[in-house]
Amino acid sequence: MTGRLITLEGGEGAGKSTAMAFLAGRIAARGVELLQVREPGGTEAGEAIRRVVLNPGHAGLCAETELLLMFAARAQLVREVIGPALARGAVVLSDRFTDASFAYQGGGRGIDAGRIAELERWACGIRPDLTLLLDLPVDQGLARARGRGPTDRIEAERTEFFERVRAAYRQRAAQEPARWRVIDASRPLDEVLVALGTALDAHFEARP
Amino acid sequence: MTGRLITLEGGEGAGKSTAMAFLAGRIAARGVELLQVREPGGTEAGEAIRRVVLNPGHAGLCAETELLLMFAARAQLVREVIGPALARGAVVLSDRFTDASFAYQGGGRGIDAGRIAELERWACGIRPDLTLLLDLPVDQGLARARGRGPTDRIEAERTEFFERVRAAYRQRAAQEPARWRVIDASRPLDEVLVALGTALDAHFEARP
Repeated sequence: MTGRLITLEGGEGAGKSTAMAFLAGRIAARGVELLQVREPGGTEAGEAIRRVVLNPGHAGLCAETELLLMFAARAQLVREVIGPALARGAVVLSDRFTDASFAYQGGGRGIDAGRIAELERWACGIRPDLTLLLDLPVDQGLARARGRGPTDRIEAERTEFFERVRAAYRQRAAQEPARWRVIDASRPLDEVLVALGTALDAHFEARP
Repeated sequence: MTGRLITLEGGEGAGKSTAMAFLAGRIAARGVELLQVREPGGTEAGEAIRRVVLNPGHAGLCAETELLLMFAARAQLVREVIGPALARGAVVLSDRFTDASFAYQGGGRGIDAGRIAELERWACGIRPDLTLLLDLPVDQGLARARGRGPTDRIEAERTEFFERVRAAYRQRAAQEPARWRVIDASRPLDEVLVALGTALDAHFEARP
């Protein structure tokens, strides 16, 4: 028996935390083993790496270093947590995964997607079975996110950065429609959750 | 005008600290701009990464994560410090560089040298002009190093690990003799320093 990896992606203020809790409940209700992780982080070393990446004091962090740190945390998470969980048949629900690197360090910071794919092959062979993208206009997302207290190093970027992140997410979703479901996250919360539930159920029905 | 990168490599207890101080004085005496750095580290983010890598609490850190962290720190050091210094004609003296990844994560942890070379190409194009290897039997080095107080996560490895590190260093030196000078560090300190000085002077004479 082999498990499945479901990832949730989206920009700032897209409602990922609420969506993660909703999805976790919906998956657990199926009576399967569920494991929730977040990126970057999810392991002791990974959380330490997360603090390095998001530290607003590291203003001079170059794009390549940021990306290598993301893959360092991811390589640890895959080997220590995700890989073993999938091997025993669990459903792993991850708050962000490799697609976030293509969106943030690719679209946002301008690292070529081909170079990111090289690191992806190098560091971790696992790809998600289903990716749910919470998509909404950048200004709406930032307005929500900025009411939440101190911003980290990446949240402090300019609006144009997040426009590029959103465009990269949408482009990846369009390139691989069988894996992605794009959810319009500008709608009222109850409608967003219904859409997430429908996408999740359809995935489990297509691959029981 | 372009500078040069001189690196010092060697296992635990090889006498790198004393050698660094000696080499720095000898280079500065030439009246050139000298910049000393250490790996992993040498930048604010790099020192934070160093703490993650060497933290004895991160016992489960996998080899790939360790290597990605080393290259993350290195990419930052090259872009923020080494590259600009070389561009203005300085001599950069680094306590370890990419060869240490081939020795520790390659020889020591068993990551294939070809895979490390892929990351090297990805993360930083700079190679040293001269590499000085302080070579001595592992038991002698460990006996010296273990008198120095608490050990970090890598220093706490077993003797066989350091035997593989030493073998990898010697193999790389043999493969690229024009760049490497192997110094027998088991000799008395004054003889080691004379040998280092001779190797350094010969390099500057060959390429003024």
